[in-house]
Amino acid sequence: MNPTIELLKSHRSIRKFQDRRIPRELFEELIRAGQSAATSSHVQAYSIIHVINPKNREALAELSGGQRYVAECSDFLVFCADMKRATDAAARAGAEVVRGMTEQLLVASIDTALVAQNVAMAAESEGLGLCYIGGIRNNPADVSELLRLPDHVYPVFGMCLGYPDQTPEIKPRLPLASVLKEDYYQDERDAELVAEFDATMHTYYHVRTGGNKDTNWSEQLKPLFTSKLRPHMRDFLRGRGFEMK
Amino acid sequence: MNPTIELLKSHRSIRKFQDRRIPRELFEELIRAGQSAATSSHVQAYSIIHVINPKNREALAELSGGQRYVAECSDFLVFCADMKRATDAAARAGAEVVRGMTEQLLVASIDTALVAQNVAMAAESEGLGLCYIGGIRNNPADVSELLRLPDHVYPVFGMCLGYPDQTPEIKPRLPLASVLKEDYYQDERDAELVAEFDATMHTYYHVRTGGNKDTNWSEQLKPLFTSKLRPHMRDFLRGRGFEMK
Repeated sequence: MNPTIELLKSHRSIRKFQDRRIPRELFEELIRAGQSAATSSHVQAYSIIHVINPKNREALAELSGGQRYVAECSDFLVFCADMKRATDAAARAGAEVVRGMTEQLLVASIDTALVAQNVAMAAESEGLGLCYIGGIRNNPADVSELLRLPDHVYPVFGMCLGYPDQTPEIKPRLPLASVLKEDYYQDERDAELVAEFDATMHTYYHVRTGGNKDTNWSEQLKPLFTSKLRPHMRDFLRGRGFEMK
Repeated sequence: MNPTIELLKSHRSIRKFQDRRIPRELFEELIRAGQSAATSSHVQAYSIIHVINPKNREALAELSGGQRYVAECSDFLVFCADMKRATDAAARAGAEVVRGMTEQLLVASIDTALVAQNVAMAAESEGLGLCYIGGIRNNPADVSELLRLPDHVYPVFGMCLGYPDQTPEIKPRLPLASVLKEDYYQDERDAELVAEFDATMHTYYHVRTGGNKDTNWSEQLKPLFTSKLRPHMRDFLRGRGFEMK
């Protein structure tokens, strides 16, 4: 196992950071490493908002569901899917641009995720820690207003970056056989593999909480799918020009 | 610049591969590195189809728009957004599951992209090359049938993996100032920065083709947005249980 793969496999989310800033030069290097990710048809359909204003950091921490590390980490980024830049460029070049296609939402969301994962990796390779903030989609309209996002741009997730002040355990992942399938989608063994993983996660939670957390993977998933998770997303996206045509 | 960041910044798509197989042990290591990526609420909403059957590889090469390397590379993967496993697990645990939410489409697509980018990175760290195959979405219904994908699973993109038999130039990226914005979305300088990038890309194409390709970034984008790119995606997704509710 080479050091890069070792690094990838040692990922854990960091939510407690030292009071120490990331040097600007290194910060820009992380973003450039992000930009090197693959991009669909070279569209580079993303923008990254680097939130520096402390009031806005506080506001975003609240809007994300009271996640203090959004305000406390060294650098906070909001990764946005951006179909504006590329479609504007094509329009200036004389194209009669069609916007709001479902495919464009996918391309922009995927491009954004690839860039972010490169930034994450680059950060970890420098001893930094990070966590993704999906909670940015709890109140995407307010977030968009705060960051003055125009139409055809939407906030996909945030990312806290900084020097770690904790070393949490690595969270287990599903058995390989559950996610890797040969030639066809086969799920005959899925219930069994999930039961195995439930046992793994039960032990993980039990040990980590000194016996106080009696749960497993399937149980933890229940609230995510019983209530309608972020039911505002469709109308929010439509209102921002991602009409899913 | 540390070796990992150097590696990230040296990414280029590889479309010509040596006739040499990736050892199984290494292959599984790449997938495990992929699994270590961050995942929204630990749902791990993806499955990876490892397409081995040569007939299916040929079929996928055609379905992706005649991309020969899909058939020729050492290993071909189809990364699928998978909301089935997690929602089934929650249902077995007693949840009254709601499916087809727009948010679930986003979560699964993003989870899938993060895993894939980790696999890509792990592969490159071992001297392998890769390219993403977005063309898998040209005919997603046929691809889904071939791979027997059930409802709540859709093919996001493919990935060719293998030992490179070419060393293409690194493709330039947009200026940092165009994608990184401070505190707010500011695009006053966007037209100017895009013009600068158009000049960069014009030179890149000119040099790479010995003067035969007279184009730039904006021009290259035009056909993507004038015709409705993959206009089937909305109905395809809806038909597979991603109803974007």
